[in-house]
Amino acid sequence: MTENPLILITNDDGISAPGILNLVNVAKKISNRIVVVAPDSPQSGMGHAITMNSMLRIKPFEIEGVEAYSCSGTPVDCVKIATIKVLKKRPDLVLSGINHGSNSSINVIYSGTMSAAVEASIEGIPAIGFSLCNTSIDSDFEPILDYVEHIIRHTLKNPLKKYTCLNVNFPAVAKELISGIKVCRQANAVWEENFDERLDPAGNSYFWLTGKFVNRELKATDTDEWALSNNFISIVPIHSDLTAYESLETLKSLENER
Amino acid sequence: MTENPLILITNDDGISAPGILNLVNVAKKISNRIVVVAPDSPQSGMGHAITMNSMLRIKPFEIEGVEAYSCSGTPVDCVKIATIKVLKKRPDLVLSGINHGSNSSINVIYSGTMSAAVEASIEGIPAIGFSLCNTSIDSDFEPILDYVEHIIRHTLKNPLKKYTCLNVNFPAVAKELISGIKVCRQANAVWEENFDERLDPAGNSYFWLTGKFVNRELKATDTDEWALSNNFISIVPIHSDLTAYESLETLKSLENER
Repeated sequence: MTENPLILITNDDGISAPGILNLVNVAKKISNRIVVVAPDSPQSGMGHAITMNSMLRIKPFEIEGVEAYSCSGTPVDCVKIATIKVLKKRPDLVLSGINHGSNSSINVIYSGTMSAAVEASIEGIPAIGFSLCNTSIDSDFEPILDYVEHIIRHTLKNPLKKYTCLNVNFPAVAKELISGIKVCRQANAVWEENFDERLDPAGNSYFWLTGKFVNRELKATDTDEWALSNNFISIVPIHSDLTAYESLETLKSLENER
Repeated sequence: MTENPLILITNDDGISAPGILNLVNVAKKISNRIVVVAPDSPQSGMGHAITMNSMLRIKPFEIEGVEAYSCSGTPVDCVKIATIKVLKKRPDLVLSGINHGSNSSINVIYSGTMSAAVEASIEGIPAIGFSLCNTSIDSDFEPILDYVEHIIRHTLKNPLKKYTCLNVNFPAVAKELISGIKVCRQANAVWEENFDERLDPAGNSYFWLTGKFVNRELKATDTDEWALSNNFISIVPIHSDLTAYESLETLKSLENER
């Protein structure tokens, strides 16, 4: 285990969210070398977006007596600018969250919180994204904080495979109801969306995204959705290789036809 | 093969980009049921971002005599709103691009063009993202258009595995120099970034993201980067299951310790 590791903390709910405050407080038990670089505004649903056509700013911020900066960009921008301009070196660990709301199954791909962890993993830095399955700003994080600490300490002691990060989701239940930890795979699930159409004062229509979450694998017992619905903490190892290896062979016919 | 398939076309460079115009013209050879819903402004680097905290607008647009709409959102928003509000049903195929610039290897995760294709695949719609490895707005698409048509026709005739899409990248070379098509895996590569720090007129600093692309697998001959650097068209099958299966077993120790 790295003694007194240099830990970078970010999120997607913004630097003022209670979730990141709770994560900072857990991290302070593990190290006194903590730096926070997090978005200056909510960035939920930003996925792996980066700021290419505009510029970024960072500003000092006060959070629990820890060195902290707000950043005008996305969660992925925060990881990049933290490493290069703030720390000027690679941290030993990147922590992202604690997200207000689930990032299980397909949410991993829309989530700014998880994309920050994935970005760290792409750069070869161990990373963990934490999410509580409750979107309320007043969520009670107390029941999960010991588990957060345990998972961080375990990861420092047992290094992740390179270019891999963890997607950790907590059921929003009382501490005594948590069944334990399950290491699992990402469920095949989808948001069945709709758009709420409205008229502005000038009579022109505009749309709000709405949606219903659908787990396509209700019978599977090895997924994060199964774990969470049975009050387990789900941990899915995540990587950024999107190759669908099982399709490589059948697609070969594309090579020869022409 | 679906006769006269309903084809949705989008991109991330914006509805006015030459790349999407070229893609529409190829698609018109294959079907007369084409609808374009594409961003009203450039959305490069938007990854899988969706618009959750703001509203969306769509407006009719003129492109090659085809039904078309510009959308104020991201490429992923375009796929969602097209399916639900414009087409009001699932298209037979989603095409995204032709992107001005490479979306090979790790670029797949930052790319709005590829995220639109991935979004379609999540929804169970076959999808292909096309990119030309030349970021110039004046790129010559002529050398690749026959290949684009061939790949679309092949995909209509030989359905992709469900929840899978294709990431197709073209080397920016003369037609006679194209070596052919290679079906391959995503290379392990990274952007080694930097930030260009400047001062605004008030003396406050701001940052522009810059970067150098580094292929970490220079010796591998089964990757998209190898294919492209040898003038092959690279085709990588892509899915949205980010589970790092090879790590599941070793992580099991997390379950038992507590």
